[in-house]
Amino acid sequence: MPRWEQGSADRLTKAALELFEEQGFEDTSVVEIADRARVTTRTFFRYFPDKREVLFAESDRIRAALVRAILDAPEITEPLQVVITALTEFDWTGPGREVHRRRHAVIAANPGLLERELIKQNDIAIEFIQALQRRGIEEAAARLATRAGMQVFATAYARWVEGDGADLRELTDAAMALLRTLLPADPSGPSPAGPRSRAR
Amino acid sequence: MPRWEQGSADRLTKAALELFEEQGFEDTSVVEIADRARVTTRTFFRYFPDKREVLFAESDRIRAALVRAILDAPEITEPLQVVITALTEFDWTGPGREVHRRRHAVIAANPGLLERELIKQNDIAIEFIQALQRRGIEEAAARLATRAGMQVFATAYARWVEGDGADLRELTDAAMALLRTLLPADPSGPSPAGPRSRAR
Repeated sequence: MPRWEQGSADRLTKAALELFEEQGFEDTSVVEIADRARVTTRTFFRYFPDKREVLFAESDRIRAALVRAILDAPEITEPLQVVITALTEFDWTGPGREVHRRRHAVIAANPGLLERELIKQNDIAIEFIQALQRRGIEEAAARLATRAGMQVFATAYARWVEGDGADLRELTDAAMALLRTLLPADPSGPSPAGPRSRAR
Repeated sequence: MPRWEQGSADRLTKAALELFEEQGFEDTSVVEIADRARVTTRTFFRYFPDKREVLFAESDRIRAALVRAILDAPEITEPLQVVITALTEFDWTGPGREVHRRRHAVIAANPGLLERELIKQNDIAIEFIQALQRRGIEEAAARLATRAGMQVFATAYARWVEGDGADLRELTDAAMALLRTLLPADPSGPSPAGPRSRAR
């Protein structure tokens, strides 16, 4: 699309975030968003079907890119690492960390948006699981690798958007190390029922 | 409540599951559920606000019991194990494995129900995280322990409802062992960026 049109989409996204923060998602209308972005509502609807989708406009593209990264991973013997690598190597910095943080805060403040976000994340998980299975990973391993990997990444992402300085890959490595410390060492296989041995 | 009333709730649940399976959730009405259970719709509404809640009637009670188990755990140094123990020691067998399997299948077949289930699971996760924090676990560890523990349990639960004979605790131990194999061993701390060492 022409540069000025891309400019409209960016301005609309920026205006929507500002208004959602100032007066809440529920109390913001498409007309207000368009006004603040200095475009017509007609222009708004050329980019987004409704105000909610301003927050989720990128999600299909992101999901497709992440799934592609899993399907194309050169090495699949460590599926959890493959999931984490796909997530950390994706370029999340596009709109800037600050926009991620604000989007995150708006979503967390609204149950309907949080619901939508959970569904989107679940959609990504389902496609990750299928992609890993297509790469030959057994279903239970594909599920666990996907969910644990996504959670490791979510832990890192939550810290990253808060902006404590570290980059996303370092934070992900730290979250992975944390998960490792949470798993009781058990080289001898599953422990019998009853009290568990203490790892620390 | 009197025994005959408990009988009505059970009959309504059974009738609802049958109808959801036979003709789908969307195409089943409260009137049909009440008819099949041989009670009035008025009786239906004494137990459930709508047909959807037949599938989720137990969830508040279950969540409260699980959170209580975490708050009361004698030992908190292994939070992931505490989450898993709370989940596996809960008495899931109440309505029988077959009812769990059928409920699971009905929910998986309907996007709206799956959405509701995801929200309920997220609500449980949030309360687990808070409970672990009240027990002194740091937030990131509480999050990871909760999400990883719930996923380990979900993996076991999915196999359990399919009824391959093993009990839930054995299946959970197996899922935990699987998660352990998915984590590359890294006793020396976070690995540097770049290609990862292979654990196997």
